Formats: sequence, C-alpha cells, structure tokens
Amino acid sequence: MSISKPLILVTNDDGYQAKGIVTLIEAMKELGEIMVFAPDTHRSGMSSAISTSQPLRARMYRKEEDLTAYVCNGTPVDCVKLALNEFTDRKPDLLVSGINHGSNAGISVLYSGTMGAAIEGCVFEVPSIGFSLCDFNADADFTATADVARILAAKVLQKGLPNGVCLNVNVPAGKIKGIRMTTQTNGKWVNEYHRSKDGMGRDVFWMTGNFENWEADNEDNDEWALANGYAAVVPVKIDLTAYDFIPVLRKWEV
Amino acid sequence: MSISKPLILVTNDDGYQAKGIVTLIEAMKELGEIMVFAPDTHRSGMSSAISTSQPLRARMYRKEEDLTAYVCNGTPVDCVKLALNEFTDRKPDLLVSGINHGSNAGISVLYSGTMGAAIEGCVFEVPSIGFSLCDFNADADFTATADVARILAAKVLQKGLPNGVCLNVNVPAGKIKGIRMTTQTNGKWVNEYHRSKDGMGRDVFWMTGNFENWEADNEDNDEWALANGYAAVVPVKIDLTAYDFIPVLRKWEV
Repeated sequence: MSISKPLILVTNDDGYQAKGIVTLIEAMKELGEIMVFAPDTHRSGMSSAISTSQPLRARMYRKEEDLTAYVCNGTPVDCVKLALNEFTDRKPDLLVSGINHGSNAGISVLYSGTMGAAIEGCVFEVPSIGFSLCDFNADADFTATADVARILAAKVLQKGLPNGVCLNVNVPAGKIKGIRMTTQTNGKWVNEYHRSKDGMGRDVFWMTGNFENWEADNEDNDEWALANGYAAVVPVKIDLTAYDFIPVLRKWEV
Repeated sequence: MSISKPLILVTNDDGYQAKGIVTLIEAMKELGEIMVFAPDTHRSGMSSAISTSQPLRARMYRKEEDLTAYVCNGTPVDCVKLALNEFTDRKPDLLVSGINHGSNAGISVLYSGTMGAAIEGCVFEVPSIGFSLCDFNADADFTATADVARILAAKVLQKGLPNGVCLNVNVPAGKIKGIRMTTQTNGKWVNEYHRSKDGMGRDVFWMTGNFENWEADNEDNDEWALANGYAAVVPVKIDLTAYDFIPVLRKWEV
C-alpha cells in the first residue's frame, strides 16, 4: 500500500495562463499531487465575489501524472467552491493561490481575488496561502517568489494552520533578504480615479491611485518589510468580529 | 448661519431600483442630507470587488431638497470609492448600505456586496452600517428593518464608531423582539451547487446551498439572535491580522 502524497489545490486571480500560476504549479510539484482550478481570464480585484446569477462551467485543460488542471468561468472564490464541492471528494492538504502579479499588502487584502481564494480555502478548513509579487509586469521574474512559496508551503504542510487563519504572503521585486511575519499595514488608497472621456465625450473614470501608509514608522507591518527587502507574511482571520467593541455596543440603549 | 445637517451616503448591492434601498433612503431622510450612489443593477455577492479594467460611469437620476442620487455601473465598493473620490468634497457623517434582500449573517459577510460597501466606508473612516433583511423576496416587508435602521443610524451619528470598525446588521423577517449585539457565527455554506445542463447538454453549475452552523448552541452569535427573533448587530473589523498567531509564526524557522 502506497502512502498518498499531499493534495495541493492551486488557483489564482490572473487566469490560468498567467506566468504567476504556471510558476506556482511548477514550484508545488515536488511537494505533492496537484489539482489546479483557475479562472479562464483575468479576475483581479474580485475579492471574495461569487457568481450568484450566472452558471459556472469548468473543463479540464491539462492532465499528467500527479497533476489535473481545470479552467472555470468564475471568480477565484467560485473556483475554490466548485472544485471542493463538485470536482474532488478528497479534502486538499493545502491551497495555494497566485502568484499574483502585483502587491496585495496592506488594505489591498480586502480587494484581492488571490486572497479571496485563500480566504475561501480557509472557510473549508484547508490550510491556505496567497502569494503575490510586487511587480505588475506580465513577464515579471518570479524566481525568488517561487522559492518563498516552496519554503512556506512545505512548512504549512508540516505545521498546519489554525482553523480560521490563512496567510497573505507578499514578496518584493528583486533580491530578498528573508521572510518576516508581519501585521496588515494601516492605510488606504487615495486619488483612486483617472477621469477621461469616452468616444462620445462623456466622463469615464479609470481606477488608478497610490497607497497612503498611515503607519510608516511601524517596523512590524507588511509595507515596512516590503520596502526593506523582505517577503512579508500576514496571518489573516476570517472571523471579522471586533470582539473588543461588543461590550461598548451592549451599553448603547437601543 | 445655518448648522448643516449630517451628510449620509446611501448605497446597496441590489441596485438603485430595489425596494430595500428605496426604503432605506426614506428612513434616513429625517436624519440628514442624503447622497445616494448605487449600482445600476443587481450586484449581489460582489464582496469588496473593484473594477480594475473597465471604466466607471455615473449619472444623476434624482435631485430634491437634501437629496442627490446617482447611479453607477460599478460594484458597491466602486460606488463608495467613486462617490468619495470624485462626487463630493464633504466627508459623510455616516454611510448606510442596503437594505439587502437576504441575510448577510455568519460567514456570508465575506461575500456580501452590501457589507463590501460598508467595509469600504470604514476604510474611508466614515462610520458605516450594512443592513440586511432575511427575506429574498423583491417585495419583502421592510417596515421593521427600516425602524432598526433609523434607530441604529441615529445612535451611530450620536456616538460614532471606532476607526476600522463598521456594523453588520441583520434583521429577521416578521415581528422582532429587539436588537442584540453579537459575534459572527462560525460555520459555512454546504451543497453549494445545483448541477444542470445547458441547451447543448453540457454541465453547468448554479449556486445554491444551505448554511451549516458550527456553533448552534452559542447564544452570543448572529444566527442565534436571528433564529430567536432578534435583529443581530456584529461589529466588523477591516484589519484582518490574526495577531495571536504572529508569535507562533515567528518561531517557524523559515
């Protein structure tokens, strides 16, 4: 009787053809059996969105020893849900999402489809990690990020993660100094739109903007780590309850 | 010199014509000056999704004394971002989102466009509340929920909310016994797809499912409150960091 290899579910939000997920699949191969379930196209900024009024479809696009890959017309969260509800009876030992083309540090975790997928894995009680490289280039150099992904995936397979907690991993472009365990930087995006005109002369607004860091002097957070050449790991909770504030609310007379 | 009324930004995820938002606008009128910025159509399940590759458009559809209303082709979060970046120089005193047609209790807070908008208001440091009625009917009776909305909105205008915390308010259908301050119920959706065939005989998957409550005996959570006839208020954090787990991660040798 053979001992089965760990099952690793791989997804992303840039679509199944993106260099980031192709790299991540290769990086995971030495750690286990791979199931890919990825969006058919670019689904950046989809957060934890789900398709409530359109039906989902999926088709296998690659099949090799220890690797089965599907492409799906849904969001990253749709991919995770459909894979785990309908395409495997075996609970994965690990979910990895990415490697995203662009940072998901700080408040961007809220908007990230990469992290939406990792958070959904966590809802299924599968140890889950989202990986992002701080480089939007379609042909970015993922070498260092693939190394970080391999190291952290192996560690999570060995140690596990608590239920309700997944990891948001961001890696700076270029050479990295190491891996730091950090908090989510407090701050927000500002100047978020570029106003231009359509062909009829009507106003249209394109997303743009820059991140305003509200705690630039905090060496514990992910933006500090990235700015100083470290990969940043933030443990992310799926229970959003602000427990500290409940006693205050209970004193409100409503 | 007149003292200006509080400015209240109203949005939703069911679209600007839904009975829920029409009711909410009416309920807020006595509390301040209203700015509506709502999606042009149904955007349920959009979470904190943003439009990164399509341009946004907005047009005014209603203008009265103390009420200016815009409709936008984006997600709920796009609506909040576009309103606050481009359509007003005044920071609102309150953001209210909803009233959603259907529950956003428990883990559904992650997928909810209603709550995506409230969370985005919170990112802008605007005290923000999402309201949902546990009734999917387009013609649901929003009377009790409108009362709850008026009471809680007035309270938040008076007391404020801490930065980084917004409120997720769910109201059961029918007569309610009162308002309870609760936690986010631990659990998940199961049996999430109905498999059927398209016109060509190919498999398609439609979202469905039921919520599996993993802490049915906890009287502090939102599902318990709803099942027992109470409106449930959960304070929601936008900092997702699992602080407790950082010391454990720092002992990992990576």
